[in-house]
Amino acid sequence: MPSEFDLIAQYFSNAHQGMWPTQGVGDDCALVDPLGERLAVTTDMMALGTHFLPEANPEDVGHKALAVNLSDLAAAGAEPRAFLLSLGLPHADEAWVAAFSRGLLEEAKTYGCALIGGDTTRTPLVGTTHAPVTMSITALGAVSATHPLTRAGAQVGDDVWVSGTPGDAFVALGIRLETITPVAGTEAYLFSRMDRPTPRVALGVALRGVASACADVSDGLAADLGHILERSGVGAELLEEKVPLSSALRTYPRELALKAALTGGDDYELVFTASVDRRDAIIALSQRLGLPLTRLGRVTPRALGDNLRLRTKDGVSQPLAGGFDHFR
Amino acid sequence: MPSEFDLIAQYFSNAHQGMWPTQGVGDDCALVDPLGERLAVTTDMMALGTHFLPEANPEDVGHKALAVNLSDLAAAGAEPRAFLLSLGLPHADEAWVAAFSRGLLEEAKTYGCALIGGDTTRTPLVGTTHAPVTMSITALGAVSATHPLTRAGAQVGDDVWVSGTPGDAFVALGIRLETITPVAGTEAYLFSRMDRPTPRVALGVALRGVASACADVSDGLAADLGHILERSGVGAELLEEKVPLSSALRTYPRELALKAALTGGDDYELVFTASVDRRDAIIALSQRLGLPLTRLGRVTPRALGDNLRLRTKDGVSQPLAGGFDHFR
Repeated sequence: MPSEFDLIAQYFSNAHQGMWPTQGVGDDCALVDPLGERLAVTTDMMALGTHFLPEANPEDVGHKALAVNLSDLAAAGAEPRAFLLSLGLPHADEAWVAAFSRGLLEEAKTYGCALIGGDTTRTPLVGTTHAPVTMSITALGAVSATHPLTRAGAQVGDDVWVSGTPGDAFVALGIRLETITPVAGTEAYLFSRMDRPTPRVALGVALRGVASACADVSDGLAADLGHILERSGVGAELLEEKVPLSSALRTYPRELALKAALTGGDDYELVFTASVDRRDAIIALSQRLGLPLTRLGRVTPRALGDNLRLRTKDGVSQPLAGGFDHFR
Repeated sequence: MPSEFDLIAQYFSNAHQGMWPTQGVGDDCALVDPLGERLAVTTDMMALGTHFLPEANPEDVGHKALAVNLSDLAAAGAEPRAFLLSLGLPHADEAWVAAFSRGLLEEAKTYGCALIGGDTTRTPLVGTTHAPVTMSITALGAVSATHPLTRAGAQVGDDVWVSGTPGDAFVALGIRLETITPVAGTEAYLFSRMDRPTPRVALGVALRGVASACADVSDGLAADLGHILERSGVGAELLEEKVPLSSALRTYPRELALKAALTGGDDYELVFTASVDRRDAIIALSQRLGLPLTRLGRVTPRALGDNLRLRTKDGVSQPLAGGFDHFR
């Protein structure tokens, strides 16, 4: 059985080096020179059985574990630079680690994000079984000192925008859990959206100085927009007929598709607000990136109790509750 | 039951702010200005049942979870600046979280290390039980650009030094596990060494430009010195009679005490090498910090198979194997 140090040496060393000078893995700390750049830092803990299905493909797990952190960097308008990985394993399963590291380091290379350090440990025993694989990634990016994106800054009258087509991952999960009956021909696309999400890094960087507030859609469009509204002290109204749906999602019952797009998590699109005079710039950006950017609502004054409302085609406006909480 | 967001707001916001400008918790990323400083970054994943006894006092757990990361910063000669916490909980146990955050934030304040971000999640189910509390901390520190400490750099002829009295935590653990019979009057001291380790931050910073290589003693003196030797391409010989033992440890059988000091982990002392002409500076440093620094051996050329040897009082030199590996 390979040791902890063997695993690190074989599967996590000699990765992409990135643009911040560093001395490489093997010391108590990674020593990094951020070259005077301002940092965006984010961390996410994930486990098989909580954030991933217990039997998830390890290469997909590696890809997605980094992607969700890169998505947080994107939401701050940061360029990925470096990350650290803590990996808790129930046993030293070399095949699993090899596939995981392949997916992880491929994604790291795509975005120029260097693996600069980490920790490997064994998950705790529960009865006679070690707990499933648990990962924690901390990612560091570089932001412009003048225009970082935060969740604060949305102004009454701003447009609400979202990238891509949220909801796909929610339906994919439903198909996997057999709570949703698949429509023939949609599964491959939907599963790829769930298993291999694309962090909107180029979009986030381009939104610096353009968006007034930004968040990534990890908990769901309504919930993550809700975080923006909460932190900005405003409300918003979305227009039901503007909610963007993928062509796959449009083959499902309308009510399900809409619920998925508004409340399903795990899509890693960006939801953002921008002043009305930025519309042309954002449409041009959408074309340049080849990524749909949809204006689906408006920032309103804050209302007590229901900051976020949905207006249907027939003009009815109703509160949009939602979101995802690990303990509820 | 409090929600994930309630827990974060109540117990992990409004912490010490540190000296790097940041916007505070609540966005997808923490935005940090490292003020041109070079960074040391380290991460550790820990769980109840693996790194802590299942019923460990949560205030001690909070203290130690940060301390072990600060110890890694100390080994790099870094001044603590900021950290991120990922916390996996089996259920939303508010009393546990309150005590944990008290220990954590007290330690953070002592060392001027700001909590700038994090993640809260639920641990995965194993059968019908959620896995125990799992924590991952990433700590960021500032190092001098000219004199960071690494494990590489030990030169043949250098002295080998260690701070404090390693081995105390090993004996404390043995007492808790009832594999070691306690000597009356030693428990309080030994338990405090295991539960409330003191990261040697001031020593690490003072060793910049003085030590040729440095590591913290987390896996055991022999193992961590072994990492220095491996990375520096050298060997070492320690003198048995020089191995520093606390007065508590000296009340235990000599063989046990020596084994604890050489191979027991979890003490978070610093082991370092330094050129012979630094002896006076190091002795002066020991006095200034009020911390024993003991010269216990010498760096030698690399020998195949047994890089690290122990010489007994009667002149016999023998290989010193040891160390700690989560999967062996």
